[in-house]
Amino acid sequence: MTTKSGRTGRPADPFPDEPGDRSPGAYPGRLRDVLRVPAGGRVDLSSYDPGGIPAGPRNKAEALEAAAAAGTRLAELQERLYAAATAGDRRRLLLILQGMDTSGKGGTVKHVIGHFNPAGCRIKAFKAPTDEERDHHFLWRIARELPRSGDIGIFDRSHYEDVLIARVRELVPREVVRRRYDEINAFERALAEDGHTIVKVFLHISHEEQRRRLLARLENPDKHWKFNQGDIEERALWPAYRKAYERMLERCSPPEAPWFVVPADRKWYRNWAVTRLLLEHLEELDPQYPQGDFDLDASRKLLREDG
Amino acid sequence: MTTKSGRTGRPADPFPDEPGDRSPGAYPGRLRDVLRVPAGGRVDLSSYDPGGIPAGPRNKAEALEAAAAAGTRLAELQERLYAAATAGDRRRLLLILQGMDTSGKGGTVKHVIGHFNPAGCRIKAFKAPTDEERDHHFLWRIARELPRSGDIGIFDRSHYEDVLIARVRELVPREVVRRRYDEINAFERALAEDGHTIVKVFLHISHEEQRRRLLARLENPDKHWKFNQGDIEERALWPAYRKAYERMLERCSPPEAPWFVVPADRKWYRNWAVTRLLLEHLEELDPQYPQGDFDLDASRKLLREDG
Repeated sequence: MTTKSGRTGRPADPFPDEPGDRSPGAYPGRLRDVLRVPAGGRVDLSSYDPGGIPAGPRNKAEALEAAAAAGTRLAELQERLYAAATAGDRRRLLLILQGMDTSGKGGTVKHVIGHFNPAGCRIKAFKAPTDEERDHHFLWRIARELPRSGDIGIFDRSHYEDVLIARVRELVPREVVRRRYDEINAFERALAEDGHTIVKVFLHISHEEQRRRLLARLENPDKHWKFNQGDIEERALWPAYRKAYERMLERCSPPEAPWFVVPADRKWYRNWAVTRLLLEHLEELDPQYPQGDFDLDASRKLLREDG
Repeated sequence: MTTKSGRTGRPADPFPDEPGDRSPGAYPGRLRDVLRVPAGGRVDLSSYDPGGIPAGPRNKAEALEAAAAAGTRLAELQERLYAAATAGDRRRLLLILQGMDTSGKGGTVKHVIGHFNPAGCRIKAFKAPTDEERDHHFLWRIARELPRSGDIGIFDRSHYEDVLIARVRELVPREVVRRRYDEINAFERALAEDGHTIVKVFLHISHEEQRRRLLARLENPDKHWKFNQGDIEERALWPAYRKAYERMLERCSPPEAPWFVVPADRKWYRNWAVTRLLLEHLEELDPQYPQGDFDLDASRKLLREDG
């Protein structure tokens, strides 16, 4: 119902008939297998429906119920991850969000962060690079914002801008863009080996949905500050951006850090899917509370006597 | 019902009988006038009841209702503050939380952040200074973490550690501690003049409530990672800490950045009070959405034609 046929790498049945709870809060499949960009293949975004529902809840009510159920579990897993780091566990999670203007990167950050304790999160929205940042290698500013062990990092835009707008606007020669794919892959491989679980999400919206969202901004004076005429001019470059995204998805989806294509025309589906992807990755990490490093009985006694 | 008599600076009636909505969500007074440490006076913490309810909701149910109502308004004010900054408004808000171990600084951060869009917040938990930080003036690491214009900054501990633990543990001579009060006041005055609204909250818990909370941690193995035997030993220094807090409250409560003493034995009251203090300060700032800097009709036309 969501993707046209012919794409490889997608499992035959995104709603696997496993035993167990089939309530919407307990989607039994692995969404990551459904949305993952397969390593090594070609990517044609016209085979991904931005308005689709490739797996999981079928409507907003089901999605809200599912996200609430996931939220409780996410909060617990985050606390375990954070706690484990205090005992030397170097693992951490980094969510990277990319997508066209109005694709909902900011809204996604707001939604997913709602599940977590923000004190253990590190959110960074990357803007056009400053003069100082431009004076360094493009990964320099990224490395400075990586999450600490035990933390959840969230990037709203990232080093991928340097193969997206940089390619479309020809900010660097095409040869440099090609080199950057490899540099990014090497960088992310090193991070993965150092305990970073990297979840890369491409928020896929349609040209038409972007038009609706920009028009909605125009019709609400309280949203005018978000609007800038350049956003409309940028729409003329849509086909070039699409190609840049396709190359990025193809070239930078190694097994240790693949891209996930999340249909983003429906906000409730987008929110559920990103939440679900985080949950599946954290479940796999399965972080554990460390044991306390103290004498329980002695501490108890001291406190009880200390009226 | 909460404070003993004899303290100056507290208004006669913390539940003023103003016209208007008296539902718990709409506390009509100014909590900041009730909880503010008066400039220039002596502070005796024994006249502040950590279990008190000096104003506002009288029970947990009322407090939850009130906090929910305040939350909607807070989210709107934050968006306005953020939006105004995009048009050059330099204002921002900084919440500083101090309090003994288990006083609930982390829990307060988690609660208040729930009202905001975290992308516009900058949370920083200050730990024991690193070697690099120690090599600088004590305000160096603070300055680096200040919120940008339009942002809400939240400090879990702060430069006040340098007149608290530094005084109690005699990390520096008493003379240096005294000088630091003045340096802090000068620093915060400069920030206030540059558009920082500084809301300083002392979470006031009782010695007995801390004992209960430490014991509760001991009885839950999932919380053992938070426990450290030094926390119990630190309790022997309670009187010295109390004196250090009193001096801090006295010496660093100028009109532009006073301390607020929030009774923190009841978590629901603490959460309501901090939320309410933020609301009152943001209401006073009254940030406005900027006008859009574009041709509305031309943009509309372009988008409508751009099928």
